[in-house]
Amino acid sequence: MLSGIKHLLLGTPLPTHQLAHERLNKLQALAAFSPDALSSIAYANQEIYLGLVIAGSAGLALSLPIGLAITALLVLVALSYFQTIQGYPSGGGSYVVARDNLGMVPGLVAASALLIGYLLTAAVSLTAGVEAIASAFPALWPHRVIVSLSLLVVITLLNLRGLRETGTVMAIPVYLFLFAYLSMLAYGAARAFIDGPGSLTTAPLPSVPLTAFVVLHAFSAGCTALTGIEAISNGVPSFQPPEAKNARRTLMVMTLLMAVLFVGSVGLTQILAVVAGPQETILSALAGGLLGRGPAYLLIQVSTTLILTVAANTSFAGFPRVAALLANDGFLPRQLSGLGDRLVFANGILLLAVTTGGLIIAFGGDTHALIPLFAVGVFLAFTLSQTGMVVHWWRERGRGWQLKAALNGIGALATGMTVLIVGFSKFVEGAWITILLIPTLVAGFFQVRAHYHEVARQLSLDGLAPLDKPTPSPRVIIPISGVHRGMVDAVTYAQSISSDVAAVYVEFEPGAGERIREKWEHWWPEVPLVIQPSPYRSTIGPLLDFLDETDQQHDDGQLATVVLPEFVPARWWHGLLHNQTAWLIKTALLYRRRHLGFQRAIIDVPHHLQR
Amino acid sequence: MLSGIKHLLLGTPLPTHQLAHERLNKLQALAAFSPDALSSIAYANQEIYLGLVIAGSAGLALSLPIGLAITALLVLVALSYFQTIQGYPSGGGSYVVARDNLGMVPGLVAASALLIGYLLTAAVSLTAGVEAIASAFPALWPHRVIVSLSLLVVITLLNLRGLRETGTVMAIPVYLFLFAYLSMLAYGAARAFIDGPGSLTTAPLPSVPLTAFVVLHAFSAGCTALTGIEAISNGVPSFQPPEAKNARRTLMVMTLLMAVLFVGSVGLTQILAVVAGPQETILSALAGGLLGRGPAYLLIQVSTTLILTVAANTSFAGFPRVAALLANDGFLPRQLSGLGDRLVFANGILLLAVTTGGLIIAFGGDTHALIPLFAVGVFLAFTLSQTGMVVHWWRERGRGWQLKAALNGIGALATGMTVLIVGFSKFVEGAWITILLIPTLVAGFFQVRAHYHEVARQLSLDGLAPLDKPTPSPRVIIPISGVHRGMVDAVTYAQSISSDVAAVYVEFEPGAGERIREKWEHWWPEVPLVIQPSPYRSTIGPLLDFLDETDQQHDDGQLATVVLPEFVPARWWHGLLHNQTAWLIKTALLYRRRHLGFQRAIIDVPHHLQR
Repeated sequence: MLSGIKHLLLGTPLPTHQLAHERLNKLQALAAFSPDALSSIAYANQEIYLGLVIAGSAGLALSLPIGLAITALLVLVALSYFQTIQGYPSGGGSYVVARDNLGMVPGLVAASALLIGYLLTAAVSLTAGVEAIASAFPALWPHRVIVSLSLLVVITLLNLRGLRETGTVMAIPVYLFLFAYLSMLAYGAARAFIDGPGSLTTAPLPSVPLTAFVVLHAFSAGCTALTGIEAISNGVPSFQPPEAKNARRTLMVMTLLMAVLFVGSVGLTQILAVVAGPQETILSALAGGLLGRGPAYLLIQVSTTLILTVAANTSFAGFPRVAALLANDGFLPRQLSGLGDRLVFANGILLLAVTTGGLIIAFGGDTHALIPLFAVGVFLAFTLSQTGMVVHWWRERGRGWQLKAALNGIGALATGMTVLIVGFSKFVEGAWITILLIPTLVAGFFQVRAHYHEVARQLSLDGLAPLDKPTPSPRVIIPISGVHRGMVDAVTYAQSISSDVAAVYVEFEPGAGERIREKWEHWWPEVPLVIQPSPYRSTIGPLLDFLDETDQQHDDGQLATVVLPEFVPARWWHGLLHNQTAWLIKTALLYRRRHLGFQRAIIDVPHHLQR
Repeated sequence: MLSGIKHLLLGTPLPTHQLAHERLNKLQALAAFSPDALSSIAYANQEIYLGLVIAGSAGLALSLPIGLAITALLVLVALSYFQTIQGYPSGGGSYVVARDNLGMVPGLVAASALLIGYLLTAAVSLTAGVEAIASAFPALWPHRVIVSLSLLVVITLLNLRGLRETGTVMAIPVYLFLFAYLSMLAYGAARAFIDGPGSLTTAPLPSVPLTAFVVLHAFSAGCTALTGIEAISNGVPSFQPPEAKNARRTLMVMTLLMAVLFVGSVGLTQILAVVAGPQETILSALAGGLLGRGPAYLLIQVSTTLILTVAANTSFAGFPRVAALLANDGFLPRQLSGLGDRLVFANGILLLAVTTGGLIIAFGGDTHALIPLFAVGVFLAFTLSQTGMVVHWWRERGRGWQLKAALNGIGALATGMTVLIVGFSKFVEGAWITILLIPTLVAGFFQVRAHYHEVARQLSLDGLAPLDKPTPSPRVIIPISGVHRGMVDAVTYAQSISSDVAAVYVEFEPGAGERIREKWEHWWPEVPLVIQPSPYRSTIGPLLDFLDETDQQHDDGQLATVVLPEFVPARWWHGLLHNQTAWLIKTALLYRRRHLGFQRAIIDVPHHLQR
């Protein structure tokens, strides 16, 4: 039944040889990899507005200059990734580039930064999406956490089904959003040209003076507009061949769209002097001011919510891929590198879903509270990746390497300075969490790899003497709870593998054991029964004591085998009606370390009940 | 380490023979069994007030008459239980009395009603306790759920430690409460006598007319004052000998205290014309009005909170006892009848703690929302118990049986009418939940017993032919994940129990199997290795298919034994870094039902990693 539900939700399993077919064409890839980058205008705009509005109309007058500065940074970063795709056609994310060119530690720092970035992209996109729709329907405002989590579940299921189907589903909201916003911006530009600029007379009075810190703060928050731009260079192998060429074209188109949407919306907001009310985003105020509160406004808000929901998908494409790369290198649990039924990294998807859900709950679904954790990780990854590319070109020295190295160098410098600005201006509000988390994760990566190395060393057969000793058949002990039909199979099996079989009964109440012994000797007179008293009413302790005693008495270089008669109920919920004693004994024996070099075999003889 | 924490919190295990020593003297027993009954004045008063205040001062003028009617009911119920203790000195709760005298179904109805009553006592006492302290410290008001749950955890731990220690800890708040309240009531009575009655000029204007329904409604809600009175007759075996005599005296004292506290506080509230503000209980308003808002007022509120917290303890004494009785009769899972390390019914305590916590969360920690579920169950249990006592005296026909039967008959009539009044007047607000739940529980009880009977039938050895067939040694299959040191023990063990051993490798990627085979044949040339391809990257399915095939090929009346090499990490969290394949295989084999009559033995050969 469970398996039927799974197939209904996730589709039937796909065989491994279909792996190469799961590729995306350019239109699908733009839909799969760009939503975060495109949709980030929603929260980046909002954060610039919130950062400047505290300084009143003088502050808001700086929106467009800050927007242009961020756009310049966007172009530099895009140029860098354009070259990364060329240098790493097999998919060069920040982790691979930094690891190959700068060394293991910078690579792992980049990887941690990337993982954190993906996680926050998912959380921020979902909460910002819900805030967009709650601007139109204020009744949703108190339920933002639940709505965000519901969207998270939908996105997770779609991703577990597999990338191509996800790509198709995602394409509709992305192109709807582009159509709606580009139309609105064109209409707004025309209006601004005809009517002339508005005046910020309704802006709130300044509560703080317009200092350099306020400007840097708004710039830092606005830098979240660039998040997601690296997804394409991470995902080159998902493109249809020729992969690199298709990926570069897609990146160019995406960068252009980002610049138009970002500069267009920031610029129109300032030129038309839009001011947001409480419990409303600035983009909702812009759309409402331009289009009225009719169907056109609703289309804008709905498509914003949709693309932001889809934006979380960028993370679901990127996070499991980076986690799988790390797992393949032994830095994360191996389970993260395995392809699931549907040829996606199912465990990585689930890990991302759970941590994103936790983050949304912990921060109460509030985008503005999450943003300070965000940009510092993303820009650190950018910086390391671009520094790595400089080294890459310098080592390769192909045609025109100086220009390429210079472009990446400028990118590294610009993003590196951004890291410092963001880390400084947002430190107290939350950037410290990310700054602490990155070295913690890197230390964890090394711990994980050390564990795998240690296990491999212990499991190695190198230097093991040839195996030729004949082994005697084992001594067998059967713990019994009574004399019943489940025992028949267990005793029969024990006698089939050994001639040295004994039973043990753990006695809670004095006298119970003798009653059992009478029945036992009727059925199995040849199998001795030992009665072990248990004054504290525990089964495990006295049983382990008894096993230790017999092992010591025999001292034959082996531990007695335990045969467990275990009856299996016909329905799983019947298990609630029975003591899980067999399970407890198995667990206790499995995890108990005794003498080095000896192992105690545990034999489970199930007896299936019929109903 | 876990076991160390457990002993620190719960104390070291106690041997079974100490069971008889865990008895309570009368002062301890009053503290252990009376807090619910005594403290119920807090919420019963509050509910009478809330029920009448909607009819304004004309409504509030009926407080004392309703309070006296409920006190009359209290005396009748107490007389009935007084006789129950005499008739059932071994501890006659409603379940035992109704089962013995009325039959199984009425007994189980009483048992369900009791279990629900205990559960609601715990939930209502905790939330009402928090509301008492939040009346004094309004900052706590928004955090009522968390505070209630914290108190629940403390109570649960104390109960898991064992009854006597709990009795000692509980005595302090109970006697503190009695001292504080009786002093306040005496002072209030003196003031009322000197100053004369107050006037209800500050009472809110009536929002509904004073109808019979309003009066019945207030009476129903006030009946919660009687909850907990049956705890002593359930718990007779916990008293020091002579048990019955001590229990009867304790019941008399408790009833007297209940009557004084209830009538005293309801009466003073009406005579002094006390009216409560928002976010304040009526008892807080009474204490504040009498004593000012100084230390004396704080003592009242703190002792109310303490005794209400302790009141939840009545449930922790009663619920596990009733559950254990039902479990002994096969109506509830057997685990509920087992004494834990500390000679208490630990599983029953945990079950109560979890369901109470769920109820508090589901009802948002609001006492007033929980109350409608409460009285109908409690009074149904009273009615069945007292009807059962009538039958008991009639059957026994001892000296003066007619008087005893008549007293119990009057009690049954009065409480039976109360059930009807409560069920009718509170139906829509929540009594329907209890009314639906009781038959559901009874049906569940019968299902559980039917399951146990069926299992006993299937496990019975009656009619089994004598066991004399010699059994051949098993065929053995070892699923392998690679060639490493963990395999050495598994293969050696397999060879010690059988000469027919084979290995199987489930291959995800074509070619991997042949690489394994090369190494395998170097170490174990005598053990054949089968490679089973798995195009969908699943281990379990192909392995089960392979086992089915070999079993069919051999057709020797047995299923091949599976030997699982399982390496056990040195630290439990290392388990997160490894696929749990061995565990998955074990589970799949254990729960898979194949041919009737054949069982597949599963052998676990652990290999312990050192660090």
